[in-house]
Amino acid sequence: MNIALLGFGTIGTGVYELINLHKGRFADNLDEPIYITKILDRDPNKKVDPSDHHCEIVTDPDLIMNDPEIKIVISLLGGMEFEYKMIKTALEHDKNVVTASKAVLSEYFAELNAIADEHHVFLRYEAAVGGGIPIIGSLNEELKINHIDEIMGILNGTTNFILSNMTENNADFDETLKLAQKIGFAEADPTADIEGYDVSRKLAILSTLAYGGIIRDEDIKKRGLSDVEAVDVEMVKSIGYVIKYLGHSKLLNKNQVYTTVEPVLFPNESMMGHVDSEFNIISIKGDVIGELQFYGKGAGKDATANAVVGDVLYVINSLKEERNPHYKTLDKDLHKMGNSGFSGRYYLRVHVTNNDELAYVMSVMNADKGRGQIVVSGDDVFFTTSEIQADVFDSLVERLKERTPKLFYARIYE
Amino acid sequence: MNIALLGFGTIGTGVYELINLHKGRFADNLDEPIYITKILDRDPNKKVDPSDHHCEIVTDPDLIMNDPEIKIVISLLGGMEFEYKMIKTALEHDKNVVTASKAVLSEYFAELNAIADEHHVFLRYEAAVGGGIPIIGSLNEELKINHIDEIMGILNGTTNFILSNMTENNADFDETLKLAQKIGFAEADPTADIEGYDVSRKLAILSTLAYGGIIRDEDIKKRGLSDVEAVDVEMVKSIGYVIKYLGHSKLLNKNQVYTTVEPVLFPNESMMGHVDSEFNIISIKGDVIGELQFYGKGAGKDATANAVVGDVLYVINSLKEERNPHYKTLDKDLHKMGNSGFSGRYYLRVHVTNNDELAYVMSVMNADKGRGQIVVSGDDVFFTTSEIQADVFDSLVERLKERTPKLFYARIYE
Repeated sequence: MNIALLGFGTIGTGVYELINLHKGRFADNLDEPIYITKILDRDPNKKVDPSDHHCEIVTDPDLIMNDPEIKIVISLLGGMEFEYKMIKTALEHDKNVVTASKAVLSEYFAELNAIADEHHVFLRYEAAVGGGIPIIGSLNEELKINHIDEIMGILNGTTNFILSNMTENNADFDETLKLAQKIGFAEADPTADIEGYDVSRKLAILSTLAYGGIIRDEDIKKRGLSDVEAVDVEMVKSIGYVIKYLGHSKLLNKNQVYTTVEPVLFPNESMMGHVDSEFNIISIKGDVIGELQFYGKGAGKDATANAVVGDVLYVINSLKEERNPHYKTLDKDLHKMGNSGFSGRYYLRVHVTNNDELAYVMSVMNADKGRGQIVVSGDDVFFTTSEIQADVFDSLVERLKERTPKLFYARIYE
Repeated sequence: MNIALLGFGTIGTGVYELINLHKGRFADNLDEPIYITKILDRDPNKKVDPSDHHCEIVTDPDLIMNDPEIKIVISLLGGMEFEYKMIKTALEHDKNVVTASKAVLSEYFAELNAIADEHHVFLRYEAAVGGGIPIIGSLNEELKINHIDEIMGILNGTTNFILSNMTENNADFDETLKLAQKIGFAEADPTADIEGYDVSRKLAILSTLAYGGIIRDEDIKKRGLSDVEAVDVEMVKSIGYVIKYLGHSKLLNKNQVYTTVEPVLFPNESMMGHVDSEFNIISIKGDVIGELQFYGKGAGKDATANAVVGDVLYVINSLKEERNPHYKTLDKDLHKMGNSGFSGRYYLRVHVTNNDELAYVMSVMNADKGRGQIVVSGDDVFFTTSEIQADVFDSLVERLKERTPKLFYARIYE
């Protein structure tokens, strides 16, 4: 069985090593040997293992797409449009595709699913959500019996590393982000991570599968993490909470979908509150099974390669057993309702520079029943509100921002 | 497709209801309708749903075993010898078997696996470990790529409920056990739960699969929970820990297996420390994937029925696709090494009634380097030791028990 690899970066190298290193282990499951015969990379001078005489680096994708011996294409390119084009072309050339691209999937889910279905090939993407955590497979299994109506997860290693580090070292957001970049936990352009796009794409994929209709990145209400400060970490700790960056979706009344990516406070005594550093956790709730949670490494070379190779083995076994792929229709008409389906008490810190601003903040918060406990400390005013609907609180904050834009807030999960 | 159910107790009823209630949901996956046509129960007067004209209660198992239309037997009898006989007979009659019996499986794993293999039928048991948590399937998936060398889990809902309740209400073990019995969380005879047999059987099944050789209940070093007192819960809380009842196995040097079921202290800031009440958690460690954890309802009618019906659907799909079962050989020669592969600091409380006993305890603990911090409070002496090997500490405790038998101890997990 011949396989092609698109992209020879960190994950690509991990997959290459895992397939070549671990052949002895796979042998149990395989009738014929598997070889990565072609690797697409922009740099033709990249080298594979010198003892590997089966594999060559190519720069022209057509050499892969038109190779009839290649049955599986593993796409690990990164980015969006080129990878989309490659995945689509491979499927159209009757090749089974395994990918880790949350960006491409969440953007082109319906189209790629339909092409794969039409060509009777497998399209697998376990590594696209939660890295090494087997969440896609588990979710699909539980959906055979359950209606899933809630998904919640700490899905981004970079922001979770930042929050863990801020907590541990009482450090500020900016310096911690710089540290994360220095040691390779954050990219030079961290926008996708800290503004919630990475979480949003993963949440879109899980929600689409769970609720049976397409939910896109743009349907998801996102709020970035960059307003959080050391003083927030300290204050919430003193009242028994920890800040996490959460993706959360709910299905209510059969077809109303509420989605949000935002900072949330978890109680110290919760499990979610203790998922640290580069680990991820995903919770799903079904009407029969109740709540299930899955925890593991959300990123990294080995864990992600593990998920990719797991998909490859699944495809190989399915081809051997002449099993056909089975695509669920994702055509349920879902109404995307923003975040008004969430509610809770809120933690809010507002920075004020003078008494007028303080009076303004007090009057805005006073006008609403949302005001609960108040602490004024130096130039900061801290509130913990009574229960309030998420979108109502958002609009309250918009009014505050008109005069006091330096603030941070988070829903309290209870 | 006709199915028989052996046992119509809580879980049996749950499975019956789930299959009859949820037929519409399964339809996607099924070419033909599925019917439970016969239910074996000692009580012939038990009633199925009056609108169900496909199903009858029978008291003679031969009516099931000799019915050629029945392709799947779901065995949920409880107990040991009769259920073993029923599962064996069903397999020998070429019937696929789905069971939740950890007792039968852990005792007769090799034999039943071999019979199923010989008869080319499926033997599935997802519900036997961790109730609704999909751990058997996930473990088998990860084993395709990984060497698993450590398994750890809070696997018993009854003891976890007792510990959670003792912590919450500052209550003693005996009264909490009585409460658990009253509300149906513990059986009239709680031995299997509080002496560790239930955890041990589950750990035996997971370890057998993970390490590739038979590990039996009797190979596992067990220590009961009943010595724990309210004062222990309080004391460990004050030093930042929480008591959990843990099953734990390790593979070292390729074929040495260390296993233990015992009370263990987890730090307050750990995830394991926050798994409360009837929930279970299972951690597995692989050489590629790293650590994965799975959390969910470890018992209960719906969650367990979910796992059973998941297995039933797997068998139905496999039969439809003419897939053959694939049994791994479990013939690796494993050396069962007791618990000496574990080590840690220990928490120890010894009850002393006079100064002679106190002097004795001090001399025993002093003779060994294990002595760390000491607190004497009323009639209790509390120690937290420096790191010490598990079996060495056990023998130290044996010496203490000669004169001061009222004591409790737990390894500290760090």
